[in-house]
Amino acid sequence: MLNNEKIPVGVLGATGSVGQKFIELLSNHPWFEVTEVAASERSSGKKYKDAVNWILSTPLPKDVAELIVKECEPNLKSKIIFSGLDSSVAGPIEEAFAKEGYVVVSNSKNHRMDKDVPLLVPEINADHLELIKAQKYNGGCIVTNPNCSTIGLVLALKPLEDNFGLEAVNVVTMQALSGAGYPGVASLDTIDNVIPFISGEEPKLETEPLKILGKLSKGQIINNDIKISAQCNRVSVVDGHLECVQVKLKKKASIEEIKEAWKNFSAEPQKLNLPTAPLKPVHYFEEEKYPQPRIHRNLDKGMAASVGRLREDNLFDYKFVVLSHNTNRGAAGGALLCAELMKAKGLI
Amino acid sequence: MLNNEKIPVGVLGATGSVGQKFIELLSNHPWFEVTEVAASERSSGKKYKDAVNWILSTPLPKDVAELIVKECEPNLKSKIIFSGLDSSVAGPIEEAFAKEGYVVVSNSKNHRMDKDVPLLVPEINADHLELIKAQKYNGGCIVTNPNCSTIGLVLALKPLEDNFGLEAVNVVTMQALSGAGYPGVASLDTIDNVIPFISGEEPKLETEPLKILGKLSKGQIINNDIKISAQCNRVSVVDGHLECVQVKLKKKASIEEIKEAWKNFSAEPQKLNLPTAPLKPVHYFEEEKYPQPRIHRNLDKGMAASVGRLREDNLFDYKFVVLSHNTNRGAAGGALLCAELMKAKGLI
Amino acid sequence: MLNNEKIPVGVLGATGSVGQKFIELLSNHPWFEVTEVAASERSSGKKYKDAVNWILSTPLPKDVAELIVKECEPNLKSKIIFSGLDSSVAGPIEEAFAKEGYVVVSNSKNHRMDKDVPLLVPEINADHLELIKAQKYNGGCIVTNPNCSTIGLVLALKPLEDNFGLEAVNVVTMQALSGAGYPGVASLDTIDNVIPFISGEEPKLETEPLKILGKLSKGQIINNDIKISAQCNRVSVVDGHLECVQVKLKKKASIEEIKEAWKNFSAEPQKLNLPTAPLKPVHYFEEEKYPQPRIHRNLDKGMAASVGRLREDNLFDYKFVVLSHNTNRGAAGGALLCAELMKAKGLI
Amino acid sequence: MLNNEKIPVGVLGATGSVGQKFIELLSNHPWFEVTEVAASERSSGKKYKDAVNWILSTPLPKDVAELIVKECEPNLKSKIIFSGLDSSVAGPIEEAFAKEGYVVVSNSKNHRMDKDVPLLVPEINADHLELIKAQKYNGGCIVTNPNCSTIGLVLALKPLEDNFGLEAVNVVTMQALSGAGYPGVASLDTIDNVIPFISGEEPKLETEPLKILGKLSKGQIINNDIKISAQCNRVSVVDGHLECVQVKLKKKASIEEIKEAWKNFSAEPQKLNLPTAPLKPVHYFEEEKYPQPRIHRNLDKGMAASVGRLREDNLFDYKFVVLSHNTNRGAAGGALLCAELMKAKGLI
Repeated sequence: MLNNEKIPVGVLGATGSVGQKFIELLSNHPWFEVTEVAASERSSGKKYKDAVNWILSTPLPKDVAELIVKECEPNLKSKIIFSGLDSSVAGPIEEAFAKEGYVVVSNSKNHRMDKDVPLLVPEINADHLELIKAQKYNGGCIVTNPNCSTIGLVLALKPLEDNFGLEAVNVVTMQALSGAGYPGVASLDTIDNVIPFISGEEPKLETEPLKILGKLSKGQIINNDIKISAQCNRVSVVDGHLECVQVKLKKKASIEEIKEAWKNFSAEPQKLNLPTAPLKPVHYFEEEKYPQPRIHRNLDKGMAASVGRLREDNLFDYKFVVLSHNTNRGAAGGALLCAELMKAKGLI
Repeated sequence: MLNNEKIPVGVLGATGSVGQKFIELLSNHPWFEVTEVAASERSSGKKYKDAVNWILSTPLPKDVAELIVKECEPNLKSKIIFSGLDSSVAGPIEEAFAKEGYVVVSNSKNHRMDKDVPLLVPEINADHLELIKAQKYNGGCIVTNPNCSTIGLVLALKPLEDNFGLEAVNVVTMQALSGAGYPGVASLDTIDNVIPFISGEEPKLETEPLKILGKLSKGQIINNDIKISAQCNRVSVVDGHLECVQVKLKKKASIEEIKEAWKNFSAEPQKLNLPTAPLKPVHYFEEEKYPQPRIHRNLDKGMAASVGRLREDNLFDYKFVVLSHNTNRGAAGGALLCAELMKAKGLI
Repeated sequence: MLNNEKIPVGVLGATGSVGQKFIELLSNHPWFEVTEVAASERSSGKKYKDAVNWILSTPLPKDVAELIVKECEPNLKSKIIFSGLDSSVAGPIEEAFAKEGYVVVSNSKNHRMDKDVPLLVPEINADHLELIKAQKYNGGCIVTNPNCSTIGLVLALKPLEDNFGLEAVNVVTMQALSGAGYPGVASLDTIDNVIPFISGEEPKLETEPLKILGKLSKGQIINNDIKISAQCNRVSVVDGHLECVQVKLKKKASIEEIKEAWKNFSAEPQKLNLPTAPLKPVHYFEEEKYPQPRIHRNLDKGMAASVGRLREDNLFDYKFVVLSHNTNRGAAGGALLCAELMKAKGLI
Repeated sequence: MLNNEKIPVGVLGATGSVGQKFIELLSNHPWFEVTEVAASERSSGKKYKDAVNWILSTPLPKDVAELIVKECEPNLKSKIIFSGLDSSVAGPIEEAFAKEGYVVVSNSKNHRMDKDVPLLVPEINADHLELIKAQKYNGGCIVTNPNCSTIGLVLALKPLEDNFGLEAVNVVTMQALSGAGYPGVASLDTIDNVIPFISGEEPKLETEPLKILGKLSKGQIINNDIKISAQCNRVSVVDGHLECVQVKLKKKASIEEIKEAWKNFSAEPQKLNLPTAPLKPVHYFEEEKYPQPRIHRNLDKGMAASVGRLREDNLFDYKFVVLSHNTNRGAAGGALLCAELMKAKGLI
């Protein structure tokens, strides 16, 4: 594809932390090109570089810097829209865009649990894209990406579910600061501290995997019935959610069989060689002290789940540790991979 | 008691981080007075102030500063010995002292699981002190304090065991840096990071509570048979171990009943008004975001367990969060409370 | 003084971070008792415990918790007012109180440089209290406390100015997070980071010492003419501003003479034995690696300046390091000491 | 150059933190290829992957992982040697290699101030390479890279020296943890803390710039006579040394002229388009809050100096802030750039 043949895309909520990440990841993307940015009234009308408080360590891409920020109204020229809108406003705005025929790929929670909206993890439930057909939107559609704490977990669980069946999952998270956006968590709350509570997080982590790991049947998702319990903590880490996971399996499995299942896990994004897909969705570490957020969060483009410490458990069958990058795989990168899958399948 | 009537005590491993904490807590103690300090060959013969790299933020007590460091040999004048020895050497040294008639109150792990050695938490198993009688030491004895990650957990569990019975306990810890001593964990391993592994910690946390919550029967401890699973992490916190706990109870209990059980929990150290005892062993917080290490670790002299976020659980009956100070309650303070109990009971 | 003879005081801006510190320090104060708290409209009418997001690690004092928050209007019963108001509103409110006859001791910057308002550091310029006489307020008055980064510096400079004379002072600060209030600095801006800029801080640090070290002459302050340059940085520290200082002296002095000057430094607060006064305003550390914020900020009730690393300099005469607690000595504690001095001198 | 035509190089001290950084930066290098690694006796004989505790977040390059670690003796096949040896052993080992005809490019301090050894910053004193001719080594040579705190400073100073002349320089550093190697600084010393002392650092920072900015005359370096004062602090930052700098110029200059001088600064590495050279040695930031370590340390491959906050000063002429990456530009990357310059000039 020549440069001028790239697909133009718009970013909603472009000045927020997820919006910025979209812009970073879409810079030099082989298929997509950010040609429009939209944000709240406070920003619209300004040049993007003047409206944004750029918080990423990669420089603000020069071409996006000069774009004039538009309002979040469905009159953008690009037909593909990435939404990093705050959940306080995302619901109706995304719907409005879909109704006007836009393809909306959203990182916001608002439509995730809608019956006709795929909660998409391309390695896990690519077939759920079929839900789009049932959407009431006039040619447009909404596709969503799960919560940042869900994604690492489900990537690690999928091979276990497929090979051995999952009965119960217990998870305790230690989540990064960037998950709360910017300015997000006050420094006085995190230095020399842990906050054992993240508003609204535990219910998401206990329900989203059920839909993601659910089965498509007659155009509907039948949720999985794994029993899940989640406890969420905020720790002093920039990026990378670490999770202590325990699983009860339906079928007996040895440690070696489980490691094998993770090792062999590969799915459509890998087969299709999607630009943002990790080479391997799951990397297993044998060193007892790994994975660690600062060391492994960027592994495989920040798109893989890093897993370690698989061992037997006194209460469940096994326990292990999962790490994934919350703003790459867990937000903008995950949504981008959804769009790439849709493009590869002719849905964009 | 007049000042010159205080009981003289010696501290083994006095230059290490636990030893320093003993000296800090014993400074101005109403009953005990540090009159001898002992450490490894490298330090012995020097003034304490020259041998120690004092890492606490309270100033080094002036009288202790001038003491000459002795060797860890059982020829000290004080008959009461606090041991903060490293576990690589604590075993035989503590035994040697006990055999020579010393009362050894130890924070080291070496003798904790010995059949005739109490693993003592004064609020929980004061009756286990009877084990001393069975000790083969010639008038001396060894009493131990549990691991720093065990103590907060068992303080929170004891009222549940007493009132409702415990079937299973699941715990995931986020432990402070001071738990690893000094220099301990490298700064490059903890800044912007979590280490999901602490060598030897999980087995301790899965076994020590069984002995502590065990029953004394015919001069022996019959371990409790609660099923416990533990996962331990190191986070970037100075002091204060935070733990996410799930419990399965033998008897049904409401949230209010459990809170009531914690609120009413009071034991011998409180009745005896021991100098280092917390007013209340367990403090419950109604605010969802509490307890937090930096805010609550020093509560009630750093000797209480702070508990919060009690809520129903999908897999167990209930889940909640516990915090306790790992070097106060979890090490030197806990051992000191043991000694105070022994003194109050005429065993010292 | 019996408890019911304590002087009642009110705190303005009581829910803010400085206001909270006032309330903490005034709890169990031998002379003063908080009987009224006032804050913005959003809080007034509520119980203090419901209006405040208490961020300190000491528990909220029970008697203050139940007080009803009043509006910041000059109809309080207490005639002594501590102001922790935000500088965006402090100016006219403090003036209104003074005009109604209240004694206002303020930590806000608004009136610090007013010609008739003392910028008071009780160890340094107690005589500046004479300025009050010239105040146009009807029996009331305003007394201010310097900026948190100024206070440690001037405590260390005062003995040098008195003994050797100061020609020039260069200072680079590494300031704590609590200096920015709450929520203050975003955690993503400080983890694994330093911010080399604090809005408005450098001008304060370059001018306030000139007034504080100025001479009272005919009822007016003649500013000192020391040349000062300041550079201010925000680092990842909870409390305690650390400053690298270089000085050019008017009179030759040896390292020993300077240490002696610091050691001998004692002033009215020490002579009067004011409750909040440090035993020694300046503590010198011989260890090269000291002072350090986490270790020494609470020294001497958090009211002293800790100094270390005095050595010759290639460009100035000497360089050294100063540490002081920014919310104790540098804010509420400093203001409280001012009030204690005024009480001792019969001005309250 | 085809892959098999790459120049083979050896790395001394390959298991240390600087050695690891050399291996990371040399992975996929267009000119050089690591074919030999050497370390202390403890490691030699093992596979590199078994000998090293790899602390970098990029994965250990696979080909290097399998190399057998050799001893640090001058019998390596590669004639180009990068030395990341600890200064406790580097001196004689590097000399032994040079005497046997090896080209040694060293990051260690031992030979930096030797009269015949270039202390090389390719953008600044490429001509100092002429010193090599005077070296007594039999065809071999030693070239050194400055200390990590020196490099950012001299990159920012060079355009000022060239355009306006420097009379005096005052610098206060806030240095990253990685500068102390691994395990380096204890986490308990840096969390919620600053250490106002780094052993041996201030003298290096006060003397190295004089040699680097010195003039080559008759085959010898005549040191520059700028007066420099340095104060060094360790802060809780992973990578990136931040420095507050004040300068007194010989010739008047406006703020705009100085910014222009930085902007126009470009030198041989840029002209020669060396693989590791930054596009611009100095980047100036107009935003008052920049540069910041976490945001800007990796700018321009981590090889540039980021400068900001240029403003007039009360004591010197101007003050500003400099940031540079201490393990890239300040260690292995800087040494690698030296080797690239030597290669481009036919000295390798």
